This record gives sequence, structure tokens and C-alpha cells, in this order.
Amino acid sequence: MPQNLAGPEEGLAMHALATELFPICRSITGDGVRQTFDILKRYCPNLETFSLKSGEPVLDWTIPDEWNIRSARLIGPSGEVICDFADHNLHVVGYSEPVDRVLSLEELQPHLHSLPDQPDAIPYVTSYYRRYWGFCIPHSKRAMLQPGSYRAVIDSTLAPGELIYGEAKIPGESEEEIFVSTYICHPSMANNELSGPMVTTWLARWIASAPRRYSYRIVFVPETIGSIAYISRNLAEMKKRIVAGFNVSCVGDDRVYSYLPSRDGNTLADRAAKHVLAHIDPDYIRYRYLDRGSDERQYCSPGVDLPVASVMRSKYGRYPEYHTSLDDLTLVTPAGLQGGLDALKRCIECIEGNLRYKVTVLGEPQLGRRGLYPTMSTKGSAAGVRSMMNFIAYADGTRDLLDVAEIIGTPAWELLDFARKLVEHGLMEAVD
Amino acid sequence: MPQNLAGPEEGLAMHALATELFPICRSITGDGVRQTFDILKRYCPNLETFSLKSGEPVLDWTIPDEWNIRSARLIGPSGEVICDFADHNLHVVGYSEPVDRVLSLEELQPHLHSLPDQPDAIPYVTSYYRRYWGFCIPHSKRAMLQPGSYRAVIDSTLAPGELIYGEAKIPGESEEEIFVSTYICHPSMANNELSGPMVTTWLARWIASAPRRYSYRIVFVPETIGSIAYISRNLAEMKKRIVAGFNVSCVGDDRVYSYLPSRDGNTLADRAAKHVLAHIDPDYIRYRYLDRGSDERQYCSPGVDLPVASVMRSKYGRYPEYHTSLDDLTLVTPAGLQGGLDALKRCIECIEGNLRYKVTVLGEPQLGRRGLYPTMSTKGSAAGVRSMMNFIAYADGTRDLLDVAEIIGTPAWELLDFARKLVEHGLMEAVD
Amino acid sequence: MPQNLAGPEEGLAMHALATELFPICRSITGDGVRQTFDILKRYCPNLETFSLKSGEPVLDWTIPDEWNIRSARLIGPSGEVICDFADHNLHVVGYSEPVDRVLSLEELQPHLHSLPDQPDAIPYVTSYYRRYWGFCIPHSKRAMLQPGSYRAVIDSTLAPGELIYGEAKIPGESEEEIFVSTYICHPSMANNELSGPMVTTWLARWIASAPRRYSYRIVFVPETIGSIAYISRNLAEMKKRIVAGFNVSCVGDDRVYSYLPSRDGNTLADRAAKHVLAHIDPDYIRYRYLDRGSDERQYCSPGVDLPVASVMRSKYGRYPEYHTSLDDLTLVTPAGLQGGLDALKRCIECIEGNLRYKVTVLGEPQLGRRGLYPTMSTKGSAAGVRSMMNFIAYADGTRDLLDVAEIIGTPAWELLDFARKLVEHGLMEAVD
Repeated sequence: MPQNLAGPEEGLAMHALATELFPICRSITGDGVRQTFDILKRYCPNLETFSLKSGEPVLDWTIPDEWNIRSARLIGPSGEVICDFADHNLHVVGYSEPVDRVLSLEELQPHLHSLPDQPDAIPYVTSYYRRYWGFCIPHSKRAMLQPGSYRAVIDSTLAPGELIYGEAKIPGESEEEIFVSTYICHPSMANNELSGPMVTTWLARWIASAPRRYSYRIVFVPETIGSIAYISRNLAEMKKRIVAGFNVSCVGDDRVYSYLPSRDGNTLADRAAKHVLAHIDPDYIRYRYLDRGSDERQYCSPGVDLPVASVMRSKYGRYPEYHTSLDDLTLVTPAGLQGGLDALKRCIECIEGNLRYKVTVLGEPQLGRRGLYPTMSTKGSAAGVRSMMNFIAYADGTRDLLDVAEIIGTPAWELLDFARKLVEHGLMEAVD
Repeated sequence: MPQNLAGPEEGLAMHALATELFPICRSITGDGVRQTFDILKRYCPNLETFSLKSGEPVLDWTIPDEWNIRSARLIGPSGEVICDFADHNLHVVGYSEPVDRVLSLEELQPHLHSLPDQPDAIPYVTSYYRRYWGFCIPHSKRAMLQPGSYRAVIDSTLAPGELIYGEAKIPGESEEEIFVSTYICHPSMANNELSGPMVTTWLARWIASAPRRYSYRIVFVPETIGSIAYISRNLAEMKKRIVAGFNVSCVGDDRVYSYLPSRDGNTLADRAAKHVLAHIDPDYIRYRYLDRGSDERQYCSPGVDLPVASVMRSKYGRYPEYHTSLDDLTLVTPAGLQGGLDALKRCIECIEGNLRYKVTVLGEPQLGRRGLYPTMSTKGSAAGVRSMMNFIAYADGTRDLLDVAEIIGTPAWELLDFARKLVEHGLMEAVD
Repeated sequence: MPQNLAGPEEGLAMHALATELFPICRSITGDGVRQTFDILKRYCPNLETFSLKSGEPVLDWTIPDEWNIRSARLIGPSGEVICDFADHNLHVVGYSEPVDRVLSLEELQPHLHSLPDQPDAIPYVTSYYRRYWGFCIPHSKRAMLQPGSYRAVIDSTLAPGELIYGEAKIPGESEEEIFVSTYICHPSMANNELSGPMVTTWLARWIASAPRRYSYRIVFVPETIGSIAYISRNLAEMKKRIVAGFNVSCVGDDRVYSYLPSRDGNTLADRAAKHVLAHIDPDYIRYRYLDRGSDERQYCSPGVDLPVASVMRSKYGRYPEYHTSLDDLTLVTPAGLQGGLDALKRCIECIEGNLRYKVTVLGEPQLGRRGLYPTMSTKGSAAGVRSMMNFIAYADGTRDLLDVAEIIGTPAWELLDFARKLVEHGLMEAVD
């Protein structure tokens, strides 16, 4: 596995690519998604795209028509532009059907969306499965609208087409896989969602940069319908191979760390996530599976039962800017993205190294004659030796690395360093 | 199972019948018990009585002689009546042997019982297995007694006879049984004991009012010796059939709810009781089996090992009026009785519906196209849908209804409503 | 098993013998150890000594050369004696090689040890596996040393010899063993260490004083190298026979009780120790295995895996006098030693009596007709009967005595009294 976790320049690079992708109008289908994949393929190793036709049944659902939008404007009684899709793609309700109508303010109201509590924000609204059209505007602007004739123009198409998803497979020594899923269906929003594909892409680059024990299955799907479609095509293989998985969402701001378990709650992915976050940020927020809201809803559903947990910064639905125009690239920062990436790297490092270790001698080994015991004890060295002695004391071949690391309160990645040293001296062996 | 749980008129009816039964002098044997069963049979479906002869061995015990009392008076030095059995049957120690003696106050004292801390209450005292006689009077009255000659007259008989218990069997689809036991051996006291036979009788009426999965074995026994006698006659069948049981005692005042576990502590009866009480009254009092004191002492004894828990209002021994004349029908109220009954109905509803449910589709079902997802979300509807989605998310056929209800924090009876709806739409099935 | 636990005279006798042994200069080898065993053999039943030659390999270690010291002095510039081994044997670093040199103060400093925070204490320092010599003095004295010529004289030998340990075997009905280990390698210090061999010796006397179920293997070893040597010679037999063990260390002061678990944490030894200490001193200190520091490091190491726990008073490393001349026989008291001994006796009593008990009747037995139920209930008697009833209520043959004692909150030794009485009356039997 790659060793170098530090990389502040990764945060900068992720932020830069997010800036390029931000204005594209993504949805669960359409040209915005194609355009996004064209760009992502330049960065993410082995990324390929696949498509399903509108009308194709997937599990309990059906692939919807493809939506594309070229322009949209809402024009006021005096001909003034109330909002223009060209200014911000959140101004149009996602999957709005085409319209060109003149309406009174009263008739228009059911097609307007705003947030009284966040009067300057444009809300994010979609209507994928009920035909509808609408505009989203700041509440401060809506409150000023005068009675009169409004013209609503949306130049969109809703027609049979395809749903596209991306998949990057990175093979390892074993056919067993670590699964990473992120989603790619939200227009101009940064924490939810661009942070997800950014961190996933850079995670893939890091994984591919060195040999690895596990194979990796990394997917970029439109949320819900995309994960359902992916499962419907790949379930048997996924159930056979995946030993741990992460849904990568909301990993870009720099306020908190949080964790949402798989339904099982104690899979390898959960154990790694809880261990890593406890050492990175002991105050990280522990959500329950009852707080779920992203593609774990599909991956962990009965009969699918995949070991998929979420490591996040500020969780969807729990930060004020969520699903508004305020979720932008000032909220998401290079440091925030780097923190999200580093946490996931640590999780993968823990899973890759999660073997059962066994000491090769009975009783405590005599570390002194091997130069493994400090002759002069200083405060730091003593703590290090103590951690190594604790590792040795619990290395009985019955507990895996994460278990031992939890018991002795030392990060698993520090134990991996001890393990290398002790294996070199013939004092320890991996028994998996 | 019957659906309608609400019934404030049940509380009133139970209170009325308790008022009729209150003055009867019940004991572990005797005519008071016969008289009580004659009345109960008019209300409790399928109730039959059985008897055991004095001297019959039952487990480690022997059926005692039958006790009957006609009258009793304690007369003071000036011929004044200190107390009269006709005024309150607690005035005589239960199982007092016959006496007609003149004694000095000093000789009388070992035969008097009163409560210094509750000077106006008549205490409840019995001496079933040691021959004795005595009077119970308010401490305020005892303190005024003057030296002189007292005449103690108790016109009672202690002679071979029989011990009577009642049993009501209500058959269901399965031979497996839910067991309900209450006791019928205390003279004029209301929470401990008349609330027990009242709630048990109305529970039996409710059970019999609609089809049911389980069969029901409902018994009215004198406490301790009666449950021992019942076990000695029915143990093999009880062990084979009973899946859950409740000892119904102290279910009539309106102050608190409380729970006392079976010895095992986690039987189906315990799980239902804890689930129901947590939703009815999150502050309900959790006793331990070490706090036991009623017939669970026999039902849960080693080798008997029945799954019998207690759902109570103010527990015996833990409220000030316990075992005194203050435990009367002002303490026990229609609302208190109704609350006790409703809690037990909920328990039985939970056990009757406690199947393992399994969703029939992979991934989340598309509720929208089935009209199961609200198109306009209001606060209440959202919480309801969320509970239904949580139910679906955990309905993997491995956990029973109570387990799922505990995990998602929703009352099991609400999940039963969802289950009916989802089974109708072909989205869920019971796998038991 | 012996019944009489009380014995304040044991504390006095232990303190007296400790006083005799205190001045002897013990180390991991040498004449001080031989001299100590000569005295201990007069008190400890069946005590024999065994030896291993220097150079003999034991597990991952090698038996070191034997160290003997006759005299040592550090002489100041004016010929004054800075410290003299004859005054206190802590003045010389353990395993100091012979030296007779004149040095400047600057050259001397790396050979001096003192404690700035405890300026009047002589620290305890050793250098078993790195050749070195040194003196330990109070920091107050060190701070006054003037530049000039110092003469360091240590008349010691470091040469092939032997390592000695002691073993006392006390046979019981079963070949299964309870193991007790203490260490014997520290010079003049009282809590750590003389309290250990004192309490172990008196424990052996008590064990030998009456018949017993288990056999006992009691060892006195130099810490670390001695337990390693003992394991290397006896491991197979130890693993086959030992059901519980205690490392006896720091059992002589009268400030606190503390407990350090085996690595497993829930062996029979751990269960007994936690049960006993919870009743002797509910505030006893619970250490973790991560706080280990004595021979449990060897006994509980991977592959050795013996069930060895520690019951202590003030734990090594956690009291201010530890490893200094302040750890003397004013700190260790007769009452402190007696408390340590009594706690270990209770542990052994619990393990000896730890059978599975089963009541022989169904339902509650009728205690009254057997005179086991108080006719007049007083506060104390009621609590006693309640404990006995609780014991009966849980005596279903599935739980051992310690389990039942924990559940009902009564000391196991009180349950043993009930068990004797109930077995006599035919109401209970042991099912092991």
C-alpha cells in the first residue's frame, strides 16, 4: 500500500477541479453528467462509463426519461428578468418539463420555491418522478414580486435517453474488493456533492499508486436511481467480493468529522471508520443508520446487505447551507477536502493491514539485545515502546489489527510500523 | 386480534365490580373465595373453578386446612367494642383460630397489631402456617387502651376442606399459549389485590372478543400456595405450551407504571412489557427480579422456568397504603384500572403480532408509484413515512417485530399498521 | 477448606518476619536470595528451591551471571563517606560491576542517581543486562557535592553461577491447581517487595491447614527472568493444570485495594478477585491489563495464556514511595499485610467453593417447617433470609456460585454458609 498520507497539494488540486466542474448542470441524467465524466476521466485512473436506457427496469424502479435543459428565464410584469438559468442552474427545478406560459402571480406561486429562513439563498428542488416545472429564487426577491403578468420559459426536453454511471476498477492481489461509491447528480453545490467525486477521484489515484492487497471497485452514480441501477447489474459479484465499502458524500468542508454506520453497524468498514475517526477527531459525530440518507439506503437494504459505511465532514441535512446555493466553494475548502481524503486513506490503510498478528516467542521477547528497547528512556520513546509492548502482549493470533489497536488505544497505522519492525526481527508473523 | 384498545368505560365497569367484591373476606381458602368466583364467573369468559383437598401435597408444600370466619369482636374493660370484624374484615388476623378468652391488656398485646407510622390505618396480617389469633387496629386506638380485662371473641373454623382456584382457557389458532395469572386471596384491599382480578377479567373479555393466534391460559389463584398448587397439577403442559406470561398484580392506581422481570429477564413477555412501557411511560420504574414478591416466585423458580413478567402500576411493598386499610377504592380509580388494562392489551398485541417480516424487493421500494409516499410532505406525515421506511430498511426476515420496533424507536403497534399496508401492496411478507 | 479467616496476629507475624528479611541484599541472583530462602523455608510449608545455571537459555532470554556484593563506598574529596552500602543496600545500583576508581565530580555524575522531587529518598536502580556501576543517593546530598576527587569502590563479583527460585506444592483432592506467584529479587523495600513473599507464605500456611479441593502451586521467583525461567521448565504442566492464579505483589500498605486483570480479563481468578474486592472495598482501584508491570507480563503472554490476576494494595508505580528507600516497614503495616492476606484468602475460598448449585424442589421450598425461616423477623434476619431465598431462586444448576453471588449482590462466602445449611436439609445439591 502507498505510505505517504500527507499531501496538502491534493486539497488544492481537488478544489481547483471542483471549481471547473461547479457550473455544469448535473442531474440524474443528461448532458451535464456526460460532460462531467469527460473531465473526470482525465483524473481518475481506469474510469469507464456505462449506460442504461430509459424504461429499463432496475430492481423495483424504472430508468426515467433523460432530462436536458438549454435555457430558462422567469420574466416579470415590466419585462424584468426575475431569474435566469444562465446565472445559476439552481434557479430551475430539476427535471422541469418545458414551458412557455404567461401567468398571473397567483398562478405562478405554486411553481416558485424559496426559503423564508434563508432569504438570500436559492433552494435546490427536483421533481424526478412527477411531471412539473418550477423556479427557485431567493425569498427576499420573491417577497418583492408584484401582481401582474409573468412569463415562464423553460427550454428543456424530457425524452427517452439513457442514465450514465462511471466505474473504475483497480485490481489488487486478491479478488476480494473494497468498494467506494460517490454520486454525481447534483448541479452547482460543493459539499453535497462535488466534494464526493473529488475525494473519490484522488483516493483512486492514491490507491493506484502502489501495490495493494485488495482489488477496488469505485463507482460514480446518480444518487438512489444510480445505485439501484448499479446493484441491479452487479449484485451477485458485489456480494461475493466486497469486504468493505464506503459511500463518499459531504467530505469537503472543514467544520467536523462524522460517521454513519452500515445497517449492520459493525462491518470491517464500520470498524475502520470508527477507529480512524476516534484518533483523527475524538469528538466526531456518531450518526445512527436511522439518520441515513444517501446510497447506503440501497447498498445496505435487506437482501443487498453490503458492508458500506460513510465517513463524512458535515453530513447532508445537518448543515445550514445544505441543498442551497450557499453550499459553494467558499464552504468547501482545500483543507476540508484534504481532511476528508486523509480520513478515507487511513480507513483503507487499516483495512489493507488488518491481519491477525502473532508473536513468535513465549513470554516477553528480550527487546534490549535487539536494539528495540531504548537504553535512555525519554518521555516519547517510553510511550512508543509501551505501545509496542502492548501490541506484542495482545498479538496472539486471535485478534485482528483493528481489535488490538482498539484495546490498546493506539492507531492501527502505528501498529503497522511496529509490525514491520517486529516481522523483520523474526518476533512476529501474520497468520491470515 | 381485537383492534380497539380505547375503552374508558372498561375502567368504570372494573371499578364498579371491585366495589361489589371489596367487602368479601377472601383468604387463601374459605367461603369468601367461593363467593368471589360466583360473581367473577358472570364476567370472565370460560371461567371454571377447581379444588384441592386439605392435606394434599403440592410440590414442597401441603394444602392447608380451610379457614372460615363468621364474626369477631374485641371488647374493652368497660364493655366497649374495640373492633368488630363486621366493620372491616382486616380487623382479624387472617387464619385466626377460634378464641373466646378474657385477658389483661398485657396478655392481649402479643395478639394486637398496629402501625405506629400510620396511626389511622388497620394493618393486614396473616398467620397461615402457625396457629395463632389476633386483632389489627389503628395505632391511635391501641395507644388509648387502658389496663383492664379484655374479651377476645373470634368465631372461626380451621378444618379440613379445600383450596379453590379458577381457570379460563380461550383457544386460539395455535396450541402455544399466553399465560395470565392473578391472585384472589386478600380481603378488603384494592390495588393489592382487587385490581388484579378486575384487569385480568376484562383482559379475558377483550381477548375472547376476536380471533387470535395464541391460546390463552388465564388463572385466578390464592397467592403462593395457589400458584404452587396450579403448577403441581399443570407443569408439563405449561412448560410445553406457554410462550409468554404475565402476573397481574397491583394494576389499579394511577400514579406510576412499573415492571418486574422474569428470572430470565429477556423472555418474550419481558421484551413486550419493556417495549410497551417505554412508549406508554418512559419513566416507568424498572424493578429487578430481586425485588420479586408475587407468584413469579413460583412460575420462575428453577425447574419451573416459565417466561412470566409483571406489568404493574404501584408495586406491592412500594406504596404507603400497601397491606393496610388505606389500600381502598379511592386509591384505585377507573383511570388507574384502565391504564393497567391498556398496558397489558398492548403487551398481548405486541406478542400476537411478533412475526419476522421481510421486504420482498431489493433496494428501497418505489413507494411513490403506489401512493404510499406523501406528495405534499407535512411534519406528521414525514415522520410516519420515515418510520415506515425504517421498518422496511430493517425488515430482512432475521429480526422479529419487537426487535425492529426497539431499533427504530417506533411502537410495535404502529409497525403492525405499516405491515398490513405493505403486505397488501405485496412489498412485505411474514416469514414465521 | 479452612474456615477461619480472621487473624490479626498473622499481620503481626508477617511484619516481624519482614523486619528480619528487610536488610538482606536480594537481587535476581546471589547470596541474598539464598539467605532469604533459608529463612522462608522455616515458615512456608513444602518450600523447596531449584536452580538454573548462568548461560542457560530460557524462552527468549538467557540466565545471567550471578551477582554478589560484599561492600561499597563512595568517598568524597576530603575523605568523607558520601554513601556506604553497609548503611543501606539501595546505595549501590543493582548488578554494579566491581570498581575502584578516582574520578572528578563531572566524571562521577553519570554514575550517580537521585530524585530531585524526593530529595531525601534513595532511589532503587538496577542494570541487569548492561554492564555498569553506580551509586544512588538522596538528591539533597548530591546537590551539596563539591568539585574534587571522588573514590568509588564497589567490591562485587559478576560471574557464572546460578539463578534460584522456590516452589511449594500443596496437594489437594484434584490435580487441578491454583497457582500463586510472588517475587523475591528486590533489596530493602517493603511494599514492593517483601509484602509479597510474606503474604504468600502465610497464605500457604493457611491453605495447608485444612483439606482442600484444588492442589496448589506456589512459587517465589526473581521477577521477569525468574518467571520466564519457571515457565520454560513447567509450561506444559502449568497449562494442563492451572485453573486460576494470582501474582502476589504490593500487598502490605493499608491505603487502598487494587486489582489488575489477567490478559483475558474474565478468568476464574479475575472473577473471584473482582467479586471479593467489590465486597471488601467497593472503591477498590480497577487497573487494566495495559497497566501491567509484574510477572503477569509473562504468565499472560501469548501462548502462555495462564489465568493470572493481581489483587494488590497500593500498586507498583502508583504510590510515591515506590522504588525508593521510603518504601519501608513504616509504610507496610501489620494491618496492611493482614488486609492483603485476607483478600487473597477470600479469593481462594470463592474458587474452592465455586460449584454449580441446584435446588432439589420445584417452586419455593417451605422453609418455615424446617426452621429455616425466622418466625420473628428482625431487620438483620430478614436480610439474611432474603439472601438465602435469592440464592435458592437462582440455584438452577446453570450458574456457578460466583455468578449467582454477583447477580444477587451477596458475598459468595455467605452463600457457602447457606449452601451448607440447605444441602444438610436436602434442599440443594452441587452439580459439578
